[in-house]
Amino acid sequence: MFDILPLKGGLDNVKGFFSGGVSVGLKPNGKNDVAFIRSDTLCDVGAVFTSNKFQAAPIRHFKRYGEVFQTNFILINSKNANAMTGEKGVEDIDELFSLLPSSLNAKNPIMSSTGVIGYRLNIQKIAKSFELFDFNSKDSNAAAEAIMTTDRFKKEIALKVDVEGKGSFHVAAICKGAGMINPSLATMLCFITTDANVPKESIIKLLKDAAEESFNAISVDGDTSTNDTVMLLSSAKSGVWDERAFSEALKFVTKHLALEIVRDGEGSKKVVAFEVKNAATLDEAKKAAKALSNSLLVKTAIFGEDPNWGRIASTIGASGITCKEDSLVIHYDDVLVYSPQKKELDKKSEAAANAVMKKESFKIVCDLGVGAEGYTAYGCDLGHEYVSINADYRS
Amino acid sequence: MFDILPLKGGLDNVKGFFSGGVSVGLKPNGKNDVAFIRSDTLCDVGAVFTSNKFQAAPIRHFKRYGEVFQTNFILINSKNANAMTGEKGVEDIDELFSLLPSSLNAKNPIMSSTGVIGYRLNIQKIAKSFELFDFNSKDSNAAAEAIMTTDRFKKEIALKVDVEGKGSFHVAAICKGAGMINPSLATMLCFITTDANVPKESIIKLLKDAAEESFNAISVDGDTSTNDTVMLLSSAKSGVWDERAFSEALKFVTKHLALEIVRDGEGSKKVVAFEVKNAATLDEAKKAAKALSNSLLVKTAIFGEDPNWGRIASTIGASGITCKEDSLVIHYDDVLVYSPQKKELDKKSEAAANAVMKKESFKIVCDLGVGAEGYTAYGCDLGHEYVSINADYRS
Repeated sequence: MFDILPLKGGLDNVKGFFSGGVSVGLKPNGKNDVAFIRSDTLCDVGAVFTSNKFQAAPIRHFKRYGEVFQTNFILINSKNANAMTGEKGVEDIDELFSLLPSSLNAKNPIMSSTGVIGYRLNIQKIAKSFELFDFNSKDSNAAAEAIMTTDRFKKEIALKVDVEGKGSFHVAAICKGAGMINPSLATMLCFITTDANVPKESIIKLLKDAAEESFNAISVDGDTSTNDTVMLLSSAKSGVWDERAFSEALKFVTKHLALEIVRDGEGSKKVVAFEVKNAATLDEAKKAAKALSNSLLVKTAIFGEDPNWGRIASTIGASGITCKEDSLVIHYDDVLVYSPQKKELDKKSEAAANAVMKKESFKIVCDLGVGAEGYTAYGCDLGHEYVSINADYRS
Repeated sequence: MFDILPLKGGLDNVKGFFSGGVSVGLKPNGKNDVAFIRSDTLCDVGAVFTSNKFQAAPIRHFKRYGEVFQTNFILINSKNANAMTGEKGVEDIDELFSLLPSSLNAKNPIMSSTGVIGYRLNIQKIAKSFELFDFNSKDSNAAAEAIMTTDRFKKEIALKVDVEGKGSFHVAAICKGAGMINPSLATMLCFITTDANVPKESIIKLLKDAAEESFNAISVDGDTSTNDTVMLLSSAKSGVWDERAFSEALKFVTKHLALEIVRDGEGSKKVVAFEVKNAATLDEAKKAAKALSNSLLVKTAIFGEDPNWGRIASTIGASGITCKEDSLVIHYDDVLVYSPQKKELDKKSEAAANAVMKKESFKIVCDLGVGAEGYTAYGCDLGHEYVSINADYRS
């Protein structure tokens, strides 16, 4: 038995962790642009990275530490992705870390970056943050702001987990990412801290499982930016371990943040869950659900609040999965819009479906009727604001 | 030796074919909405259809005739795709054809439809066209207009091919389709007629080869609408056959029309050729080129005339193909924007690349430097007009 309780204020709740954010002038508007997360003891660390072939320099830098290592320091900058910068990009990180105050005792320091591709880091500018940071601050909020790029709002979460007879631990995270992710390839970064006593050998598996139902449900496999990163740091300071409780809390954290990313979709106004039921295989369910969440015609129909289920059917048919016209059933929330018996949308159903689409979030449920597997992907509408944001991102 | 010469006026140039278009009120603005193409003798016919699992009723109706058959009549309507209409949708076509004047002697009549998914055909309305048509007219232009949906302009082409020592034949076509096709799943239809003496057994192969380098280069394999159709009718009336000459003329026709579709991209202002060179395999070259032509971030950067090559690199990296940061070279027309030696875009190159992007059409050339295969896909920008058109297509 365990209880999961929400807490205010992100990473600050987790024992042994400190964080903060400052402005060094990477963002022209004077907002925070460099963040740190550190721990007063060494932490086990696990990370899931982008599958993009052009992995950014910070990811290649991380991988130099090998499969299993411990760390006590993460530095994060926005506005510059340090991607497509070659071996120099990795060397720049080493040079930057050589400027860290020795009093920090940074062991295996980790860097993470987000922003424009193709420019070297401004080492001097970023190193200014080392003088500005209060390394003993617990200011998750400032860190969450510093990692934002096109985000409209900060993303953080903290949970307390009470495990009967064992005690309690915490899981918290900050995150950045706006929208769609795929196909827009916008970067998402997520830093999770915990004081649960996570066994070293379980970190990666638990993180992968949680990412599969959350961040991967908002992006198509293999189609990710150069910098995407989900990282979990465990200080073990609570001394408490319960795999079921931790796994559930971790999934709650990642699912919540993934949906926050969708809700913050570049220019989007609606969050839509695309649930595919009774598919022949889990892979096919995923393929169809993700095809729906990525279809431009579906996204623009959602923007236009047009219950044009033909675009849903056509996208499923085009996704290459097993499906049949005479077993497909489509609902918008509880409103039946298509079944083999009811092919044309009557005025009453159309009005009801239109009312569903006016909501800020709703479900489009496609029952394929050919098997027993299901998957839900999350997406948002695509409107004029998306075009405006992305036509001129760099300037 | 042979010469290919352009002619005015579409299908009208090909011996033995008649065509026309009328308005029966499917389009509320009174424009032509039903077309016919007929031949005064039986023609061999070949067709390439959508790979969408939910094939529209007219495609299933066509396939009932079997692999090899002859026909002398095609009927085409816009505004209603007759897709997701079940077995009734196919029966509706039979009922419609039963109303054709018997004087036509229509043999194995073919139907083709484009428009909204999920509504039965209005048989009575469409049958009105049988009274309005002049079945002896040669009015390719009226037919081309009748098959338009969101197209901004009509698409037709006609070629005369002179083959030394053999004589001459004609290839002509009308076509509809606007934009992107994929991922927007807008329908494309193309009807090609010829009086070349095409051997029955060559029709499908020649048509597939031509489609691969044209219509398939503007859409991702397998991700097509419910109705996509490319059809070739051969009256053989010239008595002339030369495979090389015919193949080249057919490829010219299909490539021209495919580019016309891109140029007519819903709301688009620019046509861009995405050339991927020196890929490890042809499949990988296609995959990368199509990923580029379909990337929202690339399309919006083109709309914004922003030479942000990082989005090009990131999309290639995300496409899952073999590529290396230290062998990639990217040009915008002749302007080098990225090479392993030149990572950051200097002011001069940026200005030059920006000037290229101001053109109505240009090339983005990605040399992967890992093999010897290449492919060119075609795409367009994505701007506000695309959103406006597709947010409210039905009404």
